[in-house]
Amino acid sequence: MNYQDVLKEIHDEIKPLLGKGQVADYIPALAKIDPMQFAMSITCNDGSTYNIGSVEEKFSIQSISKVFSFTIALSIYRKELWKRVGREPSGNPFNSLVQLEYEAGKPRNPFINAGALVISDTIISHHGSSDKAFKEIFSFIKDSSDNENIEVDMHVADSEMANSHRNRALSNLMKSFGNLDNEVDDVIQSYFKQCSISMNTKELSRAVLYLANSGTDPITNKGFLNPSQAKRINSVMLTCGHYDASGDFAYRVGLPGKSGVGGGIVAVVPGKMSIAVFSPALNEQGNSLVGTKALELFTTKTGLSIF
Amino acid sequence: MNYQDVLKEIHDEIKPLLGKGQVADYIPALAKIDPMQFAMSITCNDGSTYNIGSVEEKFSIQSISKVFSFTIALSIYRKELWKRVGREPSGNPFNSLVQLEYEAGKPRNPFINAGALVISDTIISHHGSSDKAFKEIFSFIKDSSDNENIEVDMHVADSEMANSHRNRALSNLMKSFGNLDNEVDDVIQSYFKQCSISMNTKELSRAVLYLANSGTDPITNKGFLNPSQAKRINSVMLTCGHYDASGDFAYRVGLPGKSGVGGGIVAVVPGKMSIAVFSPALNEQGNSLVGTKALELFTTKTGLSIF
Amino acid sequence: MNYQDVLKEIHDEIKPLLGKGQVADYIPALAKIDPMQFAMSITCNDGSTYNIGSVEEKFSIQSISKVFSFTIALSIYRKELWKRVGREPSGNPFNSLVQLEYEAGKPRNPFINAGALVISDTIISHHGSSDKAFKEIFSFIKDSSDNENIEVDMHVADSEMANSHRNRALSNLMKSFGNLDNEVDDVIQSYFKQCSISMNTKELSRAVLYLANSGTDPITNKGFLNPSQAKRINSVMLTCGHYDASGDFAYRVGLPGKSGVGGGIVAVVPGKMSIAVFSPALNEQGNSLVGTKALELFTTKTGLSIF
Amino acid sequence: MNYQDVLKEIHDEIKPLLGKGQVADYIPALAKIDPMQFAMSITCNDGSTYNIGSVEEKFSIQSISKVFSFTIALSIYRKELWKRVGREPSGNPFNSLVQLEYEAGKPRNPFINAGALVISDTIISHHGSSDKAFKEIFSFIKDSSDNENIEVDMHVADSEMANSHRNRALSNLMKSFGNLDNEVDDVIQSYFKQCSISMNTKELSRAVLYLANSGTDPITNKGFLNPSQAKRINSVMLTCGHYDASGDFAYRVGLPGKSGVGGGIVAVVPGKMSIAVFSPALNEQGNSLVGTKALELFTTKTGLSIF
Repeated sequence: MNYQDVLKEIHDEIKPLLGKGQVADYIPALAKIDPMQFAMSITCNDGSTYNIGSVEEKFSIQSISKVFSFTIALSIYRKELWKRVGREPSGNPFNSLVQLEYEAGKPRNPFINAGALVISDTIISHHGSSDKAFKEIFSFIKDSSDNENIEVDMHVADSEMANSHRNRALSNLMKSFGNLDNEVDDVIQSYFKQCSISMNTKELSRAVLYLANSGTDPITNKGFLNPSQAKRINSVMLTCGHYDASGDFAYRVGLPGKSGVGGGIVAVVPGKMSIAVFSPALNEQGNSLVGTKALELFTTKTGLSIF
Repeated sequence: MNYQDVLKEIHDEIKPLLGKGQVADYIPALAKIDPMQFAMSITCNDGSTYNIGSVEEKFSIQSISKVFSFTIALSIYRKELWKRVGREPSGNPFNSLVQLEYEAGKPRNPFINAGALVISDTIISHHGSSDKAFKEIFSFIKDSSDNENIEVDMHVADSEMANSHRNRALSNLMKSFGNLDNEVDDVIQSYFKQCSISMNTKELSRAVLYLANSGTDPITNKGFLNPSQAKRINSVMLTCGHYDASGDFAYRVGLPGKSGVGGGIVAVVPGKMSIAVFSPALNEQGNSLVGTKALELFTTKTGLSIF
Repeated sequence: MNYQDVLKEIHDEIKPLLGKGQVADYIPALAKIDPMQFAMSITCNDGSTYNIGSVEEKFSIQSISKVFSFTIALSIYRKELWKRVGREPSGNPFNSLVQLEYEAGKPRNPFINAGALVISDTIISHHGSSDKAFKEIFSFIKDSSDNENIEVDMHVADSEMANSHRNRALSNLMKSFGNLDNEVDDVIQSYFKQCSISMNTKELSRAVLYLANSGTDPITNKGFLNPSQAKRINSVMLTCGHYDASGDFAYRVGLPGKSGVGGGIVAVVPGKMSIAVFSPALNEQGNSLVGTKALELFTTKTGLSIF
Repeated sequence: MNYQDVLKEIHDEIKPLLGKGQVADYIPALAKIDPMQFAMSITCNDGSTYNIGSVEEKFSIQSISKVFSFTIALSIYRKELWKRVGREPSGNPFNSLVQLEYEAGKPRNPFINAGALVISDTIISHHGSSDKAFKEIFSFIKDSSDNENIEVDMHVADSEMANSHRNRALSNLMKSFGNLDNEVDDVIQSYFKQCSISMNTKELSRAVLYLANSGTDPITNKGFLNPSQAKRINSVMLTCGHYDASGDFAYRVGLPGKSGVGGGIVAVVPGKMSIAVFSPALNEQGNSLVGTKALELFTTKTGLSIF
């Protein structure tokens, strides 16, 4: 199958949908983004790549960064990590405090905000400071994407900090339950910086390729996780990667994936390839509307669903 | 890989766990079952089969029956089905009314009790009566397992009927929201009968083989679903098949699966095989404790996880 | 103070509000009622009475009947009653199943539907059958109102039975938790019959006079409750008598009271008098809009709030 | 009736209960308090006073301070206040975030923590700074108790600040919903200082006397509220003054009241007197166990319940 032709077909078919949905508007830095953009990149385990659309355009990776911080924390803490965070779907909007309170400050999974904050907390504890924790995450992403030119958009980071009340509520609630070891400000800062990392789809699809190859980058042969851990990251992406639309994403796309409110989505075809897609307008569940559709078309056309 | 050897290894390794957990005790008919039993059966797409343990022992399939009724309803109603029931994980114990009330009587997915009751309701509406609906489900299972000797344990069905208050609460709540077309009694009766179907692991692994082969039985060539529908049943099994332990099952086992409180679990390796396991003692989430462990060992030993 | 003049003033002031709000429409028998009606009656402990508006017009007392069934159950079971039902405000819409599930089938108070169903259940257990339980309640009301001509509107009762799914959901849920001794059908029937009792404001204000006189009818000297019990019924009316608008009613009116979706409200001025008001259009919380306003005007004009 | 004799009887009857319950232990400053203490003071509208027990012993007034801040905010904002906070019982443990999230950041009433934080916020906005807001509250209490010697226990205030994560979670959540105008730190500081005010039962019963006399101190003739406002504060105390035991307090005691985790309770007999009681060990709902019992005995012996 010629993946470039598939991308071309997808590009044609999603065009009528561009502009539908809503760009994230909770911070000005995201609200001003052009909703008509689209890009999609494939990186195969054999090193071949396929691209379509504005694939050089960098965007805020936002919650996609949770894949990388989860990877780091799992490799540090292994089974111990699950004492601090669960691995069940949340069944509630992504920033809900309700479930967190009923479950005594233990977030349902590493991909809801509360879970990602706990993950940040564990990395800070391991590396000694908020700055060092962020550097570790940033450095991991450069490593896994084999690319030194990844950037942080400090304008976005500052904008996030100025609108951080809900994440502070989550952090303080967890701290009141004893599930946050570091100061709320330190955790929040590290977390928002990782969310503000800026990448294009070429870089992003490259950065998660290790998850398509049992934890080891098939090109550089760098090992990030063992095969069992890589599978497990994929399973959590499948069941929890899209907030309260995770079931819908599994149903329609059938691949492990993780979305961000910046409009990006990464997806993994285990053993074969990784994919990144970008289109800023979001559906009602907060995932890229066109991005989700593009991935659905991809698995329909190629039959590459894991199911 | 010799699957018979794998089953043998699994059998040896799970022995120390037999008796841990708790047999379902909400009805006498289930409470008296010997918790030390274990059986595991594999049916491959090429027709080869592998068995270990008490594979002739029949048990109540309970919620595993939801896979078959969901298959029937999806093939009848297609996309229309999703107006009546969702496909998101529930994030709550399996019989909770809370989410059902917050979401106006629309169950989260076809595998929680409320969802299975709605599925029964749709089949009754299509076939005209509770009896005919049950006959359709029963006949489907005989068909998909290519076996006329499947039985219903009316003793279990009667026992369920006498302890049906919570399912009646769910049904009445949905009816008050207008999401149940038939009488509560009719829906409950059809549902409990399907739960009381009695099968052994050989029969069960055979009965779900169509889900490992894109909706068509690879041995008889009978078509039950189109490939897209079969994948989607698998995706819902993965994200919702084990109540509030679905994420954990995906994490540990990495296969689409569905459990029942009778102690059975079915799992599907897309493109390759279907598996059934039986051991009656349940873990805290209501899934077979040893059965889950056996499947985890299976994917660890064979690398056959979908991730 | 001349109460007749006060009633006259109130009547003038509420006129512009008549027709605002919404008549209960969940059953046809209530939906067709003329929303422009208004009546208000006062019965003083000294036997004097004051009336204004259509005070001969009978209406369905609905949830006001819970005052009488609660009185009967408290006099039978005393402190034991509180093992079956609580006495805390519900903080949720009146027919919510959520709190009932979180609190293991024990309703928050005798005035939410679930609580009233448990109260009915206890009276059935005491008197031996659903029919006898209803007769006891009916007979109590005739007694306390010193009037043999109270009626039941069987048309309303039948209409309620045909729309009883939510109350059946509540009952089945409580039965699944072991907090209902009798059959759901029996409890529902007794409950709906008591709701369908038909009275006018003259009769209703007379019927609750015992609560204004420490449990003893000041005119006939019949004792229904001891002084301590009567105070406690009043306290539960104040904190729980108006569903999730109980705080608002206490704030605006400042009297123990109980409303019904038929448009009636009873209120008690301890030591002095009882009041009944009727106007069928309800506010958003399901209480008579004009009735609440009339009572607010009454306590503002007379200073007879308990606070 | 000789109130001094009544107090003497109560003192004798509660002695066997002293030491039951649990002293608040979430901060060291409260955890070390001797649980065997008891004091009760009555101040009548005619100026007569009755005291028993360790009535000179000062204790942390904690949530009782919410009565004074609510009084101030109601006199400033009148009806406008209800746009920011409700007046319905909460039906949930006192510091729950659940209801706050479901109700979009608007607390149920001024006596749960979230409500008191909003009240603090409104006073800060009116007076221009956190310090000035606290001074206003402090000065009000000195005024209403006609006593310049009221103190703040800064040791308690500091201890509260070091354990403020849950209140910070509440504040940040409300700020994320736009229901907090000032900085979280400023609101928290003002709130904790008012909670750390230290008074004895003589001072406290004197300080709330205005609520027993329609808003005007009957001794100094200073007016703090108009009669309608005073009644309304009393009604909110009755329906919401004891967290999720408000119904129980109304049932057993039958007076408007407000408790604090420091072990104090104030209660009001409208038109007659105000009462303060102190005993540090708390019942399961977080209210003084012996204090509640003492007030129950008081209304039983005197018949002074409002019902």
